[in-house]
Amino acid sequence: MRELRGSVLQASLPRLVRRGAWGHARRLLEKSHPADIAQVLDRLTEADCKAVFDLIRSGEIRAAVLAMLESETRARLLSDLPTSDAAEILRHMPQDDAAQVLRELPDEVADDVLTHMGEEGEELGQLLEYPESTAGAIMSPTYIALPAGIGVQEAIERVRRHSDAEGSFYVYVVDDHGALVGVLSLRQLILQPPDKRLQDCMVTNPIRVTTDTDQEEVAGIVARYDLLAVPVVNASNQLVGIVTVDDVIDVLREEATEDLLKLAGTTVEEVTSPGLLRGAWIRIPWLVASFVGGLTGIFLLDRFEGVFYQAVQVAFFLPIILGMGGNVGSQCAMVVVRGLATGQLDPSSIGRAVLHQIGTSVLLASLFALALAGWATWLGYGAPRLPLAVGLGIFASMTTAATIGTLLPILFSRVGADPAIASGPFVTTSSDLMGILTFGSIAGMLI
Amino acid sequence: MRELRGSVLQASLPRLVRRGAWGHARRLLEKSHPADIAQVLDRLTEADCKAVFDLIRSGEIRAAVLAMLESETRARLLSDLPTSDAAEILRHMPQDDAAQVLRELPDEVADDVLTHMGEEGEELGQLLEYPESTAGAIMSPTYIALPAGIGVQEAIERVRRHSDAEGSFYVYVVDDHGALVGVLSLRQLILQPPDKRLQDCMVTNPIRVTTDTDQEEVAGIVARYDLLAVPVVNASNQLVGIVTVDDVIDVLREEATEDLLKLAGTTVEEVTSPGLLRGAWIRIPWLVASFVGGLTGIFLLDRFEGVFYQAVQVAFFLPIILGMGGNVGSQCAMVVVRGLATGQLDPSSIGRAVLHQIGTSVLLASLFALALAGWATWLGYGAPRLPLAVGLGIFASMTTAATIGTLLPILFSRVGADPAIASGPFVTTSSDLMGILTFGSIAGMLI
Repeated sequence: MRELRGSVLQASLPRLVRRGAWGHARRLLEKSHPADIAQVLDRLTEADCKAVFDLIRSGEIRAAVLAMLESETRARLLSDLPTSDAAEILRHMPQDDAAQVLRELPDEVADDVLTHMGEEGEELGQLLEYPESTAGAIMSPTYIALPAGIGVQEAIERVRRHSDAEGSFYVYVVDDHGALVGVLSLRQLILQPPDKRLQDCMVTNPIRVTTDTDQEEVAGIVARYDLLAVPVVNASNQLVGIVTVDDVIDVLREEATEDLLKLAGTTVEEVTSPGLLRGAWIRIPWLVASFVGGLTGIFLLDRFEGVFYQAVQVAFFLPIILGMGGNVGSQCAMVVVRGLATGQLDPSSIGRAVLHQIGTSVLLASLFALALAGWATWLGYGAPRLPLAVGLGIFASMTTAATIGTLLPILFSRVGADPAIASGPFVTTSSDLMGILTFGSIAGMLI
Repeated sequence: MRELRGSVLQASLPRLVRRGAWGHARRLLEKSHPADIAQVLDRLTEADCKAVFDLIRSGEIRAAVLAMLESETRARLLSDLPTSDAAEILRHMPQDDAAQVLRELPDEVADDVLTHMGEEGEELGQLLEYPESTAGAIMSPTYIALPAGIGVQEAIERVRRHSDAEGSFYVYVVDDHGALVGVLSLRQLILQPPDKRLQDCMVTNPIRVTTDTDQEEVAGIVARYDLLAVPVVNASNQLVGIVTVDDVIDVLREEATEDLLKLAGTTVEEVTSPGLLRGAWIRIPWLVASFVGGLTGIFLLDRFEGVFYQAVQVAFFLPIILGMGGNVGSQCAMVVVRGLATGQLDPSSIGRAVLHQIGTSVLLASLFALALAGWATWLGYGAPRLPLAVGLGIFASMTTAATIGTLLPILFSRVGADPAIASGPFVTTSSDLMGILTFGSIAGMLI
C-alpha cells in the first residue's frame, strides 16, 4: 500500500540521513511518491532538508516535491538555489503551481526567475497579474480547447497531441473568437461515434467562472456541481484557463482552517510559524481587544461596589453567569457562521433562523436560571433576594449573549466583513460586558 | 452563466408556485441544473416542495435532485412516496448516493424499498452492511476493471461498453482473482499505441484504501495525492469499489463543519433542525458540563470568602483574569486541534509544538500581568498587594490555561477521543476552575 510506503519513508529517511547513508537514501527516494517526500522534508532540519533535496535527480520530481512543500520549507530551499536552477525547476511545474511559488518569493527574485525562464516566463508573468484568491490566480492555463466543427475522431487525435495538458479530463469547445461554447468529458468523447461533430454532442453553455471570481466561490461551484475542473473565462467570455478539483480541495481546506483559527483570534501562520515572538505577535490583537473589554468590566463592577459590600457572595456568581452567557453566545455564533459559510442560511431563511436561535436560548436560559436560583437557595445565600438576583442575572446574561451571538455575525456579513471574526473576540467580550451590566443592575436593585 | 441561472431559479420558482403557474414552473425546471433545483426545494414549504418535485418528469433528474437535497427535505419527500416510486427513483441514482439515502430511512422502510428494487436492491443491500463513515459506506461499486493481458484498443472498446460506470476517469487493472494490480487514467489510455498491452503501460501498485478505512483518512489520501478517485479493496486485495473526489469534497466539508460546531458544543443537526426543544436538547450536554464547572467555581470562591471581605475589589478582577485565561487556552487548543486534523502535528513534531505554544503563552502572560498590575496601581486599589495579586493571578491563569489548552487535545487524541471536543467544553471549564484556584490562593496569601 502506498500509504504504508509514506510512513516507511518517514521512519527510515531521517535515520539514513543521520548515518550519512546517501546512496541508500537516494534509492528510497526513487521509490517514493513526491507527496510523501515533501512531507518528510517539511520535518527535517534546514541542512538535512537541502541535502536530501539535492539527492533527487529528476527535474520533474524536484518540481513535484517543491510544489507540495509547506511555504516556509520551500522558501528556504529556493533561497539557496542559483536563479537558473530555480527557473529550471519551475519549468517542470504546472503553471498554476509555479505561479503560486513565485507569489511567495520577493518581487525582485521572482522577476529574475521569470527572466531566466524566457518565453515560458512571460506566460507565467501574466498569471501573476491576477489578484490573489481569485480564479485567475489559481487557474492553470493549460487545457484542451477545440473548435466546434471538427469530428470526434479528429478531436481524439488532437487530445493525443496535447500530452502536457494538466487536468485534461474535459475537452472544451470554443468558437472562432475563442469564446467558450461547450464542453465534453474525455469519457463522453470516446463514447461518441467517430464521425459525429463536436457541436452535435457537446454540452452547451457549460458552468464557468470569470478570472475575478473569488476562489471560495469557485470552490463552492465545483463542489456543488460535482465538477473535476471548471473553465475560467475573461470579460469577453474567452476561455483563458481551468481550475482543477485538486486546487479546489486545497482552497476548501485552507478556508476551513482559516475560519477555525479566526474564531480563536489566531491565524494559519501560527500553526507552522517557528518563532515565539512571531507567535505572540499574531495573537496579540485579539487578546488586547479582550483585555480592554476586561478593563471596561472592572470599571463597570467598580460602579456596583455597593452590592458587593452588601453581599460579597454576589461575586462568587460572576464566573458562572458570564461563562454560561459566553457559551450560549458562541454556540449561536458558530451555528450562524457555519450556516452563512455553507449557504444554508440565506436572506430568505435568516429571519426564521434568528428567531430559532434566540428562542432556543430563552428556553435554555430559563432552565439554568431556575437551577442556579435553586442552588443559591440551597446554599443559604441571603434568600430570597440573592437567589432571585442570580437567577435573573444568568437569564439576562444568557439571552443577551445569544442575541449578540446570533446578530453580530449577520451584521458583519451584511457590511461585507468576515462573520467568523465576529464570533470570536467580539461575541465573548461584548457578552461579558452586557452580562456584568445586567447582573450588576439586577443585583443593585434587589440587594 | 450557470451560476446566474441558479439565482434566477431561486428568485422565480417560489413566485411561480405562489401564483400556481405550474406550466411555467415546469419549463423553468427543465432548463435548470439538479443542484440548483435541490437548493430551491430545501427552502420551500413542505407542501410547495412536494408540488414542485412532482412537476419533475424525468426519473433521472428526480434522482439527481433527491440525492442533493438536505436530509430533512429528502426524508419528508420520500416518506410521502409509495414504496414502488421510491424504489424507481433510487434505481436511477448512483449506488453510493442510493446507499446514503437508504441509511437515513427507518430500517423497515429501507428493507421494503430494497425488496422492491429486486436484484439491484441486493447489491445495494451489501453496501449498507459497511459501517458508517468508512470507505465501504461511501464507495461506489460501479467502476471499470480490466484484465492486465488485453491491449489498449480492446480496453478502449470495453470502456465504451461500460457506459454507466460513474467516475470512470480511471481504468483499474485486476488479475485473475480480481486483485488490484494497476491503474491507468482514461487519458493515459488513449495516449498509448493501440496494440500495447495494459500490463506494459499501467501504473503498478496504485494507491488504495480498504473498505474499513475511515472516510476522513480516505479524504486525506485523495487530497494528498491529487486523485480523482481512489480504489477500495477488501481484505484479500480484491477491488470492490471506488471513492470519487466529489464524495471526498462532501466528506471534507462535513468534517470541517462538525469540528467547528463541536468546538462550541453543538452539532450539525442544529444548523438545519427545526424544533426549539430539539435545538435546546442538542446544546444541553455541554451547557450542563459547563454549569457544573461553574457551581464548582462558586464552591471554590466561597472558600476564599475572607479575601473578598478584606478587599472587595479582588472580585472586579475575576472576569478579566478568567476571560484572558480562557482566550489563550482556546487559542492553543485550536492551533493543536487543527494541526492534528491536517497532519501538520505528528509524533515527531509534537514536543516542539507543545513547547512553542506554552512559551508563546508565557510571553503573553508576562505582558498582560504587567499591564494589569499597572492598571490596578493606577486605579489606586490597595497597592502594592492587590496589584501584585492580580498581576500574578492573570499570569497563573493564562499559563495554566495555555498548558491545559495545549495538552488536553493531545491527550484526547492519544486515547482515541476527538480532540475537537476537548478544546470546546473541557478547556474553558477546567481553565476557569484552575484560574479561580490559583488567583484565590495568591490573593489569599497576599491580602
